[in-house]
Parts: sequence; structure tokens; C-alpha cells
Amino acid sequence: MAEFMTETEQRAPGVPRPGTPGEPRERTGEAAAGPSDGHEATALLERTRALVDPELRAALESLPGSMRRIALYHFGWQQADGTPAAGNAGKAMRPALVLAAAAALGGPAARAAAVRAAVAVELVHNFTLLHDDVMDRDASRRHRPTAWAVFGDADAILAGDALQALALRLLAEDPHPAAVPAMARLAGCVVELCAGQHTDTALERRAPDAVTLDEVLVMAEAKTGALLGCACALGALYAGAGEDEVGALDGFGRQAGLAFQLIDDVIGIWGDPERTGKPAGADLAARKKSLPVVAALTSGTPAGAELAALYAKPYVEAEAEAGEIARTALAVERAGGRDWAQAEAADRMARAMQELARAVPVPEAAGGLLALAEFVTRRNS
Amino acid sequence: MAEFMTETEQRAPGVPRPGTPGEPRERTGEAAAGPSDGHEATALLERTRALVDPELRAALESLPGSMRRIALYHFGWQQADGTPAAGNAGKAMRPALVLAAAAALGGPAARAAAVRAAVAVELVHNFTLLHDDVMDRDASRRHRPTAWAVFGDADAILAGDALQALALRLLAEDPHPAAVPAMARLAGCVVELCAGQHTDTALERRAPDAVTLDEVLVMAEAKTGALLGCACALGALYAGAGEDEVGALDGFGRQAGLAFQLIDDVIGIWGDPERTGKPAGADLAARKKSLPVVAALTSGTPAGAELAALYAKPYVEAEAEAGEIARTALAVERAGGRDWAQAEAADRMARAMQELARAVPVPEAAGGLLALAEFVTRRNS
Repeated sequence: MAEFMTETEQRAPGVPRPGTPGEPRERTGEAAAGPSDGHEATALLERTRALVDPELRAALESLPGSMRRIALYHFGWQQADGTPAAGNAGKAMRPALVLAAAAALGGPAARAAAVRAAVAVELVHNFTLLHDDVMDRDASRRHRPTAWAVFGDADAILAGDALQALALRLLAEDPHPAAVPAMARLAGCVVELCAGQHTDTALERRAPDAVTLDEVLVMAEAKTGALLGCACALGALYAGAGEDEVGALDGFGRQAGLAFQLIDDVIGIWGDPERTGKPAGADLAARKKSLPVVAALTSGTPAGAELAALYAKPYVEAEAEAGEIARTALAVERAGGRDWAQAEAADRMARAMQELARAVPVPEAAGGLLALAEFVTRRNS
Repeated sequence: MAEFMTETEQRAPGVPRPGTPGEPRERTGEAAAGPSDGHEATALLERTRALVDPELRAALESLPGSMRRIALYHFGWQQADGTPAAGNAGKAMRPALVLAAAAALGGPAARAAAVRAAVAVELVHNFTLLHDDVMDRDASRRHRPTAWAVFGDADAILAGDALQALALRLLAEDPHPAAVPAMARLAGCVVELCAGQHTDTALERRAPDAVTLDEVLVMAEAKTGALLGCACALGALYAGAGEDEVGALDGFGRQAGLAFQLIDDVIGIWGDPERTGKPAGADLAARKKSLPVVAALTSGTPAGAELAALYAKPYVEAEAEAGEIARTALAVERAGGRDWAQAEAADRMARAMQELARAVPVPEAAGGLLALAEFVTRRNS
């Protein structure tokens, strides 16, 4: 699953700015953390790390030695040899959503009570990263070798299994009345994440002309949207929210997650390699059936046909014509893949805003969630 | 993790018979299911399958299509192509322990209430089987190709992940007051199982002279004993038992599990291939550091040194001298590995009986648990 590793202060074209366009959005209370939207989210994320890290760290320290070592390496708190490291455990977007949702519906007391749920969500996210890296043979994450590349497949699988169990144990040991429904929801979400990852792998194996846009959207919702939605829903549960609000916040997270994935796929093709940390066009070279690519392939345009012809054979750098990747990117763009992805992201963000307004009618209270949703979809690196 | 796939009516030498030696043990109530110990356990296991299978099946049917298909194949209810199969989901030993423990401490009502916990334990067991088969590259289980061999590593990993989540979701959705502590215990047990599997792999990679008997015993307790103990503890929780009884039943299951592993390792060397379904001496050919082998290697005897020399190089059938496996087995035996394993199994069973008596002072009520413990350690195939 993709991570929120890169960001800029600029807005991706096509993603609507919540509030009156052009005017600065009113910020009060929870949302007034920083001088700009980006800073607001950054401040929320930093505050989340400060709240979540001690509990997360304590949970990892409770693991038996072998599992602890792999987990601490994965989270960036240890080097492969067990010596301490500065830590680079990602942006904490999912725990930030848990805490922001709890605060939006229940104020600071609910936010404080939801820290354990935030840790559980972060553990589940990292369990899926450990396993996805094994399955996808991804050798690097957060600028370091992945756990399987250092410790082997078996240990990375086991550490992932242990993190899932740890997440659910944390909730089972939480006396808060929301813990049990939160657990049921989180466990259900894991099943959906597994199905999403399965579909992703299955779609990648199919011929380029045998994948529909709807299939890729459903897959992206399961693989990326589900856990963002679950994070928001757990925060709502810890605020004592009713079923409707919990469902609406789940919808908010899902739609924002899809918007994020669309933008992430755009960046995967047209992003600046210096910012993304990946070579330019890596997704195209890997013939990845990302959302803009499938939109282009199913566009019925001449550029779509050209893209299909390019995708029909694997990309081998040594044999490729000069500029082949640039030509592939241009085909996606000419077939409308880039525009579609940006319009779709805008649409998903609009839907996210509707769900948010349904769950949190008071705009001031929704500020934190808004800032986080903007943050994940604003990146254009 | 090993399965209870084979059994005979005979008793492994050295394993004590609970009750007065030579006299038939009194059977009443729960324990009076059959005319002999083996039949009693068999009847309990059959009854368990009848109680557990509908709930287990319903839980699997609730999975999304892709995960459901792999899970139903793994449990033997579907062929690889999705057509129905007769089902061969193993002996249901762990669910039987859950139900027998609940019945021992809380009677038929507790047993009926504990069915969901029994299903959860069986799901966790099968999640570990799916993952262990991937890590150990075991290509067959229950006389069929393993899930990874049919669907690939990624799908087998994902299906295992989904089964763990499903197990904990079942408990999270169970309104019984024992469900939450049961969940915490089961999740904690998963962490221990992961550590046990890690240690197993790590010990197998070490040189034969660099493994102590204590390390292998600790590993076997984590890998095999922990879930049997957890199964018994969950049954006790569902019977409303106190901490002491729950702990004692956990200890009973752990010690019985170790006894089982010791006997299983003996069978792995000296068992009848027709009964075990594995070629004779397969564990020795694989240079497995099973409990009798490590006992022999650390015996300080000339036979132990001979065994170490044999284990120092991999076994290659085409290059091996005729009778090399038989000679290896003989070295284990002469170094005392077989006798030690059988005496240790007897000792573990005695400890299991002590724990059982502590948790269930009325012998009649303990009959079901006794029968199951005898059953898993009686096999000498």
C-alpha cells in the first residue's frame, strides 16, 4: 500500500480547495494549528507522532526478542544490527485520522482516549506493508532496505503476523467501551485489505486490455481507502458517535483515500524523481496498471491504442528506444488518463467533503480532518 | 506446526496412562463417550466437528470471494477449481480442547457457549499452517498440495492474514463476557506462535553442535504448546473460571502439547511410513533438529559424535551410502535420543495431569480433556 512520503506546498490541479475558492478558509480550534493548510496538517501529524510513538514503541517493546528486532527495524527505530536509529516510521497519517476524527466528534477527551486505537491502526498498516513488500518483492521502503531484504521472507511474514495480533491485543486490553466494536471493525478492514491486495496482484497479471476502470477503482478502495476509512471510523467510535456518523466518517476516509491514490498514481507517472525518490516513469516501466493508465487504455482513443501496444511487451531498458518512457507517458496523457485522474480525484474529494459534512456539521470541528485530507491529496511531486 | 493426522490404538512406550496403571479408568458423564480411550477421544473429536464445522464454514463463507476460495481449498471443502470437496479439515483437536475445557469447568451450557471461541482457535491454527507452509516450502498437507503450491505464495499469505483477522473478528462480535479476555489471550498466543516459528527456522539454520536441548524445548513449547494451552484457557474463560484455573488449563495444554511434539518427533524418525504418509527417516534426511536428535547430539556419547558427523553434511540420496538413514536413526537411538524423548514425554504428560488436577479437581469432569491428551500422545505410527 502506498505511503504518504512526499508532499509539497503546491496543490494538484483539479483537486478542489475546501471552503470558498481563493479566500482563506476560516480556522478555529482544532484546525488553527498552523499558518497555512500544509502547516496545519504538518502540525497535526507531528502532534500525532508525539502522542502515538510512546505507546507504539511500548507495544513493540512487549514483543518477544526476535519479533521485536524486526519490528523496530521496520519502524526505523533500530538498524539491522540492533543499534538504535533515529526512526522514520512514516507520516502517521492513519493515526492522525483516528485522533482528528475522535477530536472532531468528541473533543480533546475523546482524542486522548483514542490513542490506543490510533496505535492499533498504525500497527495494522505496518503489518500490511511488511507483507506487501514480501509479495511485491519491493526491496526498499522509507529509503532503507525492506524487512524481507534484510531478515528474509519468513521473518518479515512472521513480524507482520505478530503486528496484526499486537494491534488486536491492544484493543482487547483497552477498557474503553468503543474498543470491542473498534476491534470488530479493524479486523473486518484487514479482510478487505487482503482482498484488495489480492485483486491488485491479480489485475497486474492480466492482459492490459482485460482490466476495466471500475475494477481498478474497486481495488484501490479496498487496498487504500478501506484503512483510511477505518481509521476515521475508529476515531468516531471512541467519541461515542452513532452508527450514521461512524459510517459517514468511514466514507470520508474512503473517498479521501481514493483521491490520494489517484494523485499518487499521477505522481507515479509525472512526478519529479527528486521528490518521489523513484526513477521517472518507474510505474510505466513496470507496466503498472495504475488508474490513469487504465483510464487511458479503456479510452477508445488512438493514443489509448498506442499505449496498449507499448504495454503489450515488457519494458527492457537496454533494448528500449530512447524516450520510450516519455512516449508512454505522453500516450497516457493524450488518451485523457491524466485529466481523468485529476477530475476523478476532485470528484472523490467532493464526495469526501459531503460525508464529512454529514458526520461533522460544525465546520470548525471538521478542520483537522479537512487539513489531513487536503494534505494527502495536495502533493504534486 | 505439526498436525494430529495419524493415530493408532497403541500407546507410545513411556507415556504414562492416567489413572491406576492396568486398571480401566472410571468414566462418567462427559468422558463416557466410547468403549475405549481412543474411541472416547474419537467420539469427542467427531462431536466437535459437528458443532464447529457449521460456524467455521459460515465464517469462511463471509470472506470476500478471492479469500474464500483459498480458505475453502485449504480446509478441504473445495477443490482448487472451486468445485465442492468432501472436506478434510484435520482432527479438530484444538476446538475439541476448547469445548472439553469449557465442559469440564462449566458443563454443557459452557460448552455450547464456547463454540465461537473454538472456531476462532481453529482459524488461528489454520492461519499459521498457511503461513508455515509458505515459509517451510512444504508442498503437501492433508494429502493435497498446499495453498501456496496451488495459488502462489502471495495468495496463501493473504488468506492466512484474513483467517487471523476473521478469528479475532468472530470473538469481537461475540457478546459473551469471556470474548474480550479470550481475544486478548488468543492475540497474545499468536505472537508467541510467531516467535516459536522464527526460533524453529533460526535453529534449523544453525550448526548441529550450536543448538541446546533447552532451546529446542522452549521453541516447541512456543510453536506447539502455546496454542493447545490457549485453546484450553479459552474454554476455561467461557466457563467463567478464575485466573488460577485458566492458568492451570493453559499449563495442561502446553505440557500435553510438548508431550505430543516429543512423540511426533519420535514418529518422524521411527514411525511407519505407511501410517505417517512420509518416507521413512524424512526428518533425518532433512537434517531436522528434532527433540530426539538434539538430545542425542548433546549427549556427549560416541553415538552422539557419530550423529554429529553425519549431520555435518547434507543428505543427498543419490550420493548416500546404502542404509545411511538407518545408521543415522541408530546413532540417535544409541546416543539415548529415543529413550530421552519418551521419558520426557512421560514427564510432560505427568505435569499436564498435575495442572489438570489443579484446574479440575473432580476426576469425572476432567475425562474429556484427559482423553484428548492421551489421544494426541498415544500415536506410535
